Amino acid sequence: MTDSQMTDSQITDSRMADSELYGKQGFGQSSGFGDRPALLIVDLQVGFTDPEIFGGGNILDAVANTQVLLSVARHCKIPIAHTKVVYADDGSDAGVFCLKNPALVQLTEDAPMSQIVAELTPQAGELVVRKTQPSAFLHTQLAAWLINKAVDTVIVAGCTTSGCVRASVVDSMSHNFRTIVAEDAVGDRATAPHEATLFDLSQKYADLLSTEQIITHLRQQ
Amino acid sequence: MTDSQMTDSQITDSRMADSELYGKQGFGQSSGFGDRPALLIVDLQVGFTDPEIFGGGNILDAVANTQVLLSVARHCKIPIAHTKVVYADDGSDAGVFCLKNPALVQLTEDAPMSQIVAELTPQAGELVVRKTQPSAFLHTQLAAWLINKAVDTVIVAGCTTSGCVRASVVDSMSHNFRTIVAEDAVGDRATAPHEATLFDLSQKYADLLSTEQIITHLRQQ
Amino acid sequence: MTDSQMTDSQITDSRMADSELYGKQGFGQSSGFGDRPALLIVDLQVGFTDPEIFGGGNILDAVANTQVLLSVARHCKIPIAHTKVVYADDGSDAGVFCLKNPALVQLTEDAPMSQIVAELTPQAGELVVRKTQPSAFLHTQLAAWLINKAVDTVIVAGCTTSGCVRASVVDSMSHNFRTIVAEDAVGDRATAPHEATLFDLSQKYADLLSTEQIITHLRQQ
Amino acid sequence: MTDSQMTDSQITDSRMADSELYGKQGFGQSSGFGDRPALLIVDLQVGFTDPEIFGGGNILDAVANTQVLLSVARHCKIPIAHTKVVYADDGSDAGVFCLKNPALVQLTEDAPMSQIVAELTPQAGELVVRKTQPSAFLHTQLAAWLINKAVDTVIVAGCTTSGCVRASVVDSMSHNFRTIVAEDAVGDRATAPHEATLFDLSQKYADLLSTEQIITHLRQQ
Repeated sequence: MTDSQMTDSQITDSRMADSELYGKQGFGQSSGFGDRPALLIVDLQVGFTDPEIFGGGNILDAVANTQVLLSVARHCKIPIAHTKVVYADDGSDAGVFCLKNPALVQLTEDAPMSQIVAELTPQAGELVVRKTQPSAFLHTQLAAWLINKAVDTVIVAGCTTSGCVRASVVDSMSHNFRTIVAEDAVGDRATAPHEATLFDLSQKYADLLSTEQIITHLRQQ
Repeated sequence: MTDSQMTDSQITDSRMADSELYGKQGFGQSSGFGDRPALLIVDLQVGFTDPEIFGGGNILDAVANTQVLLSVARHCKIPIAHTKVVYADDGSDAGVFCLKNPALVQLTEDAPMSQIVAELTPQAGELVVRKTQPSAFLHTQLAAWLINKAVDTVIVAGCTTSGCVRASVVDSMSHNFRTIVAEDAVGDRATAPHEATLFDLSQKYADLLSTEQIITHLRQQ
Repeated sequence: MTDSQMTDSQITDSRMADSELYGKQGFGQSSGFGDRPALLIVDLQVGFTDPEIFGGGNILDAVANTQVLLSVARHCKIPIAHTKVVYADDGSDAGVFCLKNPALVQLTEDAPMSQIVAELTPQAGELVVRKTQPSAFLHTQLAAWLINKAVDTVIVAGCTTSGCVRASVVDSMSHNFRTIVAEDAVGDRATAPHEATLFDLSQKYADLLSTEQIITHLRQQ
Repeated sequence: MTDSQMTDSQITDSRMADSELYGKQGFGQSSGFGDRPALLIVDLQVGFTDPEIFGGGNILDAVANTQVLLSVARHCKIPIAHTKVVYADDGSDAGVFCLKNPALVQLTEDAPMSQIVAELTPQAGELVVRKTQPSAFLHTQLAAWLINKAVDTVIVAGCTTSGCVRASVVDSMSHNFRTIVAEDAVGDRATAPHEATLFDLSQKYADLLSTEQIITHLRQQ
């Protein structure tokens, strides 16, 4: 039985019980928006939208909502960064992550599965971060780029919620960027890890907002 | 309804369904042990063992099993590192994490709640990493210390499973240390986040072994 | 013969010849001030002011000028961070740096030589970064703290110019903080490394300004 | 007057005076070789060998000696990593470094000046690190890659001695890799910064050995 097979009221009960404990211990406050947000789109590559490769679940919904968010972010001229997982053609940079899933090394620079999905193709001036690990920040120039843009808030979309999105959100918060997770613009191949992650992120690391709420905020700024 | 209220067979069913999808996509392989393991004990501080502060759930079980693991690690003379969350007395290093939970700033150097629990008091030669963020690695000297000890494998115990343990495991793997999670020596204040994290870690980042299995391995080496 | 034994015109000739080449290749431009400066004071600990320990040269001049700079920075309420080299009492975190100079491990938390000099004692709200390596940034929370303070410019004072100041300046620039070196508030145990470093820094990484010029800028802001 | 215009005995006198002070304070010890060396070749790209772009001085000598070192390293099958400075075609990742020298942004992926020199073309299995900052380590996957190869010693060649080589050596040491600088296989556009850097590195961060001495060591291992 997966979380999605529980009734809505059962899920609500479970969340409420844990939320109470977390709340009593001080967790679950809002870190809010700062003044200078950026949009970070994590790993929306072809291979992560295809259930036969690394995709599935609600990732296509995440792509659709990210497309809306990206359009508004471009209109508001906030800094935009995309990440993609890419390994060297000769596999020279494959490490322990590729022991856990050897199929990852197929994500080479020119492989069709490595390309960012067409709807979200990066434009000039947007940063494209190539990475070999879950986090968009660890061992990449992303934090330095955000500093250069005077960013204080990172809005996160992409996939997978329990994988690279989560690692990136934790690292964004750990760099002291206020972090907003676009809860309907992040997706995962399975529902239970997606839901469990949203709970953890909202309690400890980031604020969860819908794409619509984020857009309203960006337009007001 | 929490995961712990599901029947054992229901949990097994849920895990199996997700595991199949992950397995089909190549996840869930073993990264195994290397030749030179170290033990990393995450945040087993008084405040995280007390349900009135940040503790609860199965964290006391984690302490008990970690004590066994620590004793064997000392006997086998493998490198041992402890982490603790500590903020400056004047709160000068509080950041976004402390917006999500303002109570964290009480973890000052001399506060009783900040001390590593008595059973696990660090001995001379063991590293004590002070940190203000979830990961034991981010913005700390831990990776450099492990390099100095020629470590290739990190065995992780401590708390919380879904918080600092998880962030540390992801970063350990991301630094290319083979990573072993002592599944009965990690604990969390709530069962659902604990279980969800163990699933994610085992599929993508680390191998799960019991304290007993780890001890058997260490003794054979 | 040290640089200080060359005549002023000889030094000027040498600098001009190299400067011409660097200039022809595009180096030596100004990166200037941003809008939100912070002051970073590197390693002005007792042991680095005493020629019998790790001090000498013009480090005492650096202390005197840093004291002026610190006073103005406090008056202007800009963020202030201090660094100090500190090793664990049991030497557990000594690494390769301590192979190159084994005396460094004497810089333990409570040793008199480890204390920041009395004139520069940190006040509440100022960050104190403990480090075991040259750079103030590498494996510390300094960058995250500066992000939290929305800093875009780092003014650097302290010692030694060719050692921890230089490593910190290179890392500050590498994090995309505009970096200003207070050229009369940095000091080194020997003149030649001090002068050589100021040349390198000004050509490639930072702007050099006198304490007086920096104060004028801060007061105008 | 540059260092190269001083007589040999004058240079020797200057070095000896400073060396005495450093020696008295404990600096200048050897950190030596460990058991598992790797070769790191820094930025030997076409643009850094051409005096009309970013080259000059003794960089061509460094290329020639690095070629010998690379050949032996391949023969001995030790891990080999190359770095290159590369900026995005649209300049989206240009930061403060490019304010100090705006010409750097010309180092785009496909520009002839960005290519590693033909004599040193990387082979399959050798890591190529793209970077936008001086250090080969900062914000790159190099340290994780070296961990994956169980490396404990980094032999450094390349250019420029006072720039990217120096920053990489300091960071290599700061990660607790024993660090060896191939003193005749590193080069700089000007002599004074080259010489000043070799002095600093040998006193505080690394051991200096000739290509011949390094080869002798590798062959004995």
